[in-house]
Amino acid sequence: MVDNATPAIILVEPQLGENIGTAARAMMNCGLSDLRLVEPRDGWPSEPAVAASSGAERILEDARLYGSTAAALEGLHRVYATTARPRDMNKPVLGPREAGPAMRRAEAAGERNGILFGKESKGLHNDDIVLAGTIIEARLNPAHTSLNLAQAVLLVGWEWWMAGPVETPAAEPEATVEKGDAPALQTDLLNMFEHLEGALDEAGHFFPAEKRPVMARNLRNIFHRANLTDSEVRGLRGVIESLVRRPRRRR
Amino acid sequence: MVDNATPAIILVEPQLGENIGTAARAMMNCGLSDLRLVEPRDGWPSEPAVAASSGAERILEDARLYGSTAAALEGLHRVYATTARPRDMNKPVLGPREAGPAMRRAEAAGERNGILFGKESKGLHNDDIVLAGTIIEARLNPAHTSLNLAQAVLLVGWEWWMAGPVETPAAEPEATVEKGDAPALQTDLLNMFEHLEGALDEAGHFFPAEKRPVMARNLRNIFHRANLTDSEVRGLRGVIESLVRRPRRRR
Repeated sequence: MVDNATPAIILVEPQLGENIGTAARAMMNCGLSDLRLVEPRDGWPSEPAVAASSGAERILEDARLYGSTAAALEGLHRVYATTARPRDMNKPVLGPREAGPAMRRAEAAGERNGILFGKESKGLHNDDIVLAGTIIEARLNPAHTSLNLAQAVLLVGWEWWMAGPVETPAAEPEATVEKGDAPALQTDLLNMFEHLEGALDEAGHFFPAEKRPVMARNLRNIFHRANLTDSEVRGLRGVIESLVRRPRRRR
Repeated sequence: MVDNATPAIILVEPQLGENIGTAARAMMNCGLSDLRLVEPRDGWPSEPAVAASSGAERILEDARLYGSTAAALEGLHRVYATTARPRDMNKPVLGPREAGPAMRRAEAAGERNGILFGKESKGLHNDDIVLAGTIIEARLNPAHTSLNLAQAVLLVGWEWWMAGPVETPAAEPEATVEKGDAPALQTDLLNMFEHLEGALDEAGHFFPAEKRPVMARNLRNIFHRANLTDSEVRGLRGVIESLVRRPRRRR
């Protein structure tokens, strides 16, 4: 049975069924159960996954399949992206040891965490990392930082497990949620981005066109970092709406 | 190149070459290089091991092969046995998080550590665990404590890596080595046991005969716990010698 309080493990385009199976086994070891798969290369369900899961078949049976990373964020409040090397992204970077307690504190505040893991060959796309508020990077042997997929799941799971439940969320600089206001769901945030970027497209904001991806990414990173609440997202959508309706000035 | 200061990873009768390869990769991630193999089931060298090692081929090339667990302890001063469940052994038990700093302190004192990992299907034999002074047991999800072999190597390696080098060995209750006296090598300790048990065999000490294994094991555990120094082992061998030479009283 999927435990909806524990972090979701989101494997983005995993290539080998076997690695999905060993990842499920590592999840089981660490008391995790919510497995989400984004476009596994060899299809789903997978015989090699079951063969490698060694007692964690239940997690595979309960796994949910998604057509995009964004869709796989349903029901989550905080998203972490795992990377083996520093990426040029303006986001906070935690080691697994710091990420464990951070996720526990978010849980104590009623928020759900999800952790993105990229494909075996190259890790996460930058477009996936943009979806995350925080990067998790294990500072391993600099000569060999690339972890096997299931090993990465184990390290992050182990540190979450070892952090143990916390009674109350500690006051964190990042915890900007006021009393009575719920943290924003990631899917609502993504809808807001699309709203905003659609409006900016119409306004001819993204110029030259080839700079659109990086301009949009930088914009999204700002809002990810802000840890928006539910009502803030609604407020911002109202702001976008108002700006769009305002008569445009000629350039 | 094998780094002789870092912990040796000793895989006892590993069954799948692939797991040896992923274990080597995990070692490389954590800055470990001394891999020792005791009777790998499918022989050595192993094609599946190389295929799974993903950049850690060098560790596999440098791996040393042994015919027994005892032989694989050459050059080591402290031996740790990894287990997934509590064993009925009178030995200190550490979690990986405590074992990491303990190994670092031993290194700072000039001692070499080795960690035993059992075969995939059942873990270590009790006879192998007897060879260790300390047990490492990861307290994972009680419903599913059994880790994949390479995952176990990663957890212990990760905690060693995260503990970081220590400048000076901290005063530990277990550190009984006096100034100027080196810690005993495990192979010298094993020779002493054989000397002692041979003498006890001749004296008819092990009675009834079927209790010999457990009686010998309990005896060995006492000396393992004592963390003997080099000169203490030599002293004890003298004691055994003297007792053997002493005219025996009739029973």
